[in-house]
Parts: sequence; C-alpha cells; structure tokens
Amino acid sequence: MSEHIVKSYDEEFSALHNKLAHMGGLAEEQLASAIDALDKRDTELAQKIIDNDDKIDELEREIEEKAILMIAKRQPVAVDLREIVVALRLAMDLERIGDLAKNIAKRIFAIAEPRPTRGLAGLGQMGRLALEQLKNVLDAYVQHDADKAMEVWRSDEEIDSLYNAMFRELLTYMMEDPRTIGACTHLLFGAKNIERIGDHTTNIAENVYFLVHGETLDDERPKSDTTSMTHVSYSQD
Amino acid sequence: MSEHIVKSYDEEFSALHNKLAHMGGLAEEQLASAIDALDKRDTELAQKIIDNDDKIDELEREIEEKAILMIAKRQPVAVDLREIVVALRLAMDLERIGDLAKNIAKRIFAIAEPRPTRGLAGLGQMGRLALEQLKNVLDAYVQHDADKAMEVWRSDEEIDSLYNAMFRELLTYMMEDPRTIGACTHLLFGAKNIERIGDHTTNIAENVYFLVHGETLDDERPKSDTTSMTHVSYSQD
Repeated sequence: MSEHIVKSYDEEFSALHNKLAHMGGLAEEQLASAIDALDKRDTELAQKIIDNDDKIDELEREIEEKAILMIAKRQPVAVDLREIVVALRLAMDLERIGDLAKNIAKRIFAIAEPRPTRGLAGLGQMGRLALEQLKNVLDAYVQHDADKAMEVWRSDEEIDSLYNAMFRELLTYMMEDPRTIGACTHLLFGAKNIERIGDHTTNIAENVYFLVHGETLDDERPKSDTTSMTHVSYSQD
Repeated sequence: MSEHIVKSYDEEFSALHNKLAHMGGLAEEQLASAIDALDKRDTELAQKIIDNDDKIDELEREIEEKAILMIAKRQPVAVDLREIVVALRLAMDLERIGDLAKNIAKRIFAIAEPRPTRGLAGLGQMGRLALEQLKNVLDAYVQHDADKAMEVWRSDEEIDSLYNAMFRELLTYMMEDPRTIGACTHLLFGAKNIERIGDHTTNIAENVYFLVHGETLDDERPKSDTTSMTHVSYSQD
C-alpha cells in the first residue's frame, strides 16, 4: 500500500535531522567504546564495534537518499538548501569517524597480548580529547552555535600536538626495544586514526559555521600534524 | 550582467562531466607524480604535489555546487538522477585520492636522506598498481562499462596483499636494524595511503556498477588488509 499522507517540509526535514542525530550518537558511542576497549584491551568489545559499523554505513545511505530526494522534490533555496547540504556532508564525516573507530578496534587484537605496552595511556588521552571535541561539535550543530563550533575548530591543534608527541614517543620506544616494534606500529596507526577523527570533527565545525553564516570559513584550518616530515635521529648512527 | 542563455540539461550535465573528467585527470597525475617523487626522492616534485592539492579540493566544491543546483532545478529522476549522484560521490572519492597522494608526497621529505631504504621498491610497485586501477576505473566510468569496473573491483585484492607483504617486510627491517625505524615507519604510512587509494578506487567501481545497473552491488567487497590484526613474533623474545 502506498503512503497517502503528504508530509510537510518541516516534517521531512525533522526526519532527516533525527536520522543524523542518531548517526552522531552512534559515532560517539563507537569512538567511546574503542577508547574503552583499548584501555582494557577488550577484544570482545572490539569485535562488537567492528560489527556495529554496518549500522552507521546504512544510516549514511539513508540520509543521502532522503537528502537528495528532498532537494529534487522541494527545490529548497538559501538556508533550507544549506541545511540539507550540511546534513549530507555531516553524514559523510560521521561515516568516516565510524570507520576510523572500527580501525582502532581492529588494532586491539594485535596488541591484546599480555606484555604491557608503553604508549597505550597516551593513546587513551588522545582518544578522550577527540571524543570530547566530537560531542561538542555535534552539540554546536544541534544548537546552530557557530562560536561553539569555532572553539572545537581551534582546539584541533591540541590533538595534533598530542599526536606529534605520541609519534616521537613511540619511535623512541621502538628504537630502545625492538621487541616492541610490532605493538608500537599498531599504536602508531591507532594514533593516526584518532588524529584523522579530529580532522573530520574540524570539517563538521566548518560546516556548522557555513550553516549559520552562509559562507565558507576563510582562515586556513590549524594544521599541526608535522610528523610526516619528521626526521628521526639515530642513536646508533 | 546576468547570463541570458538558458542551457539545456544535456549541456549542463556535460559541463559537470567535464569538470569531473578534469578532476579525475588531476588525481591520476598527482598519484603518478607521487610515485615518481618517491622513486627519485625528489622533494621539489613532492612540494609541487602538495601545492597542487588545492586545485582538486576546489574542483570538488565546484562539482558539489553544480550537482546540487542541477538536482534542485531539474528534478531529475531514474538514470539522470543516478548520473548526478554518482558524479557527487566520485568527486568525493577523487578528493580523498588527491589527499592521500599529497600525504605520500609529504613523507618524501622524511625519507630523502642519502641512506638507501629497503622497501622503497615495493612501495613503488604498489603505487603503480594503484595508479593502473585508478586509470581503469575512470575509463570504465567514462565508458559506462560495468564489467570493466568489476574487474578493477576484483583486483583490489592484489593491492591489499601487496600491502600485507609490505607491512611484514618493513616490520622485519625495523627489527633487524633499529636505525631504519624512522624511515620504515614513514614507508609504512605511505603503503597504508596507497592501500586506501585502492579502497577509494573500489568505491568508484561500485558506483559505476550502480550507475549502469541501477542497483547497489550485493557482494561484500573483497577486503584483505589483515595487517591490523597481525601479531608479530619477536626474535628476541
């Protein structure tokens, strides 16, 4: 049977918005679980995170479909069009954040061995900071609060500098004790995943700014991951 | 002065298509240059790649804007709507591929030191394979050739298994000679970037399939990056 009720634009938009809120909540949850699983090296929880990623992917597809149908059917302009475009972009960033949380969860299997790993605490710290920023930026989105979004945008530098410190720290551990190379490499990738979650959170912040002000942020995003250019000095050289 | 010529849908779509073709060409070029710069450890070329990334980002924004305006104005259905949605999605994947090529270029500064690095050849091999797949999938898109796209889709496994081999190889080098840890870590990230370019190429292949057949590919994508779960045995244990 076909649907006989013609929904208003507001109803349709609020359905889209609810889906996005649900997706944001799931992404937060996945990241929080990944940090938790990392702290406890809990492979059971890690597996749950991996299994749950499908739900986020499915929500992205649904949001894309809904958003595009709304653009075609309603031909929204100005702020209404911006709302839908931003919803589309946020869904993309949230999907990537979910993916990165899943990647962190996958690494837990490789570092689940009994030997305590130095660097794990630093990773947890990075993760908690990224989670806090994600929560704040999603709040800023819901409240259409561009100032709050800009606060998040500016604090991405903190995550980047934690990442830079982690990178050097982990390389030092590996050089001091080559037996830790395997585990440290996984932690390095985990740290890189969290750093990229920070970048997606920054994207979301920029989109909240665009939503509220109708124009794209001019300033260059604060980018401080300098590790790709890091030379490492070799004590044994 | 305002534009007085009313363009036909076909003209508008062909303008969109041209922009996307331009973007695809740029992404290929950036990846090819990154492989080249890696082979020769050419930091000047690396810097050029980094500078050129802005052009790809700008094209993505233009394509998004054009696509969304077309959906709103023309209210396309069926295959016409699919064409525009796929163009939007491809632009996203190409933007990410450009980003990843830039990331590879950044690493070149860190490994530009005179000491020859084992593993560099393997990375070049991975890169060339990824570039070939990217070329093939963009051809498949232009020709609306779903079979060709599926060939690319299936061969992503080759890149993944090269990545798995590289991962183990680089870890072995690091354990054998801790002085190489810095450089090998950068190569490891470079390899991961190429592996992810392969994933985006696979996304594009799936979208070509969707474009031609009007439905989403059912099979699970062949996923063989197992390194995140790799335990490493320690010779010194």
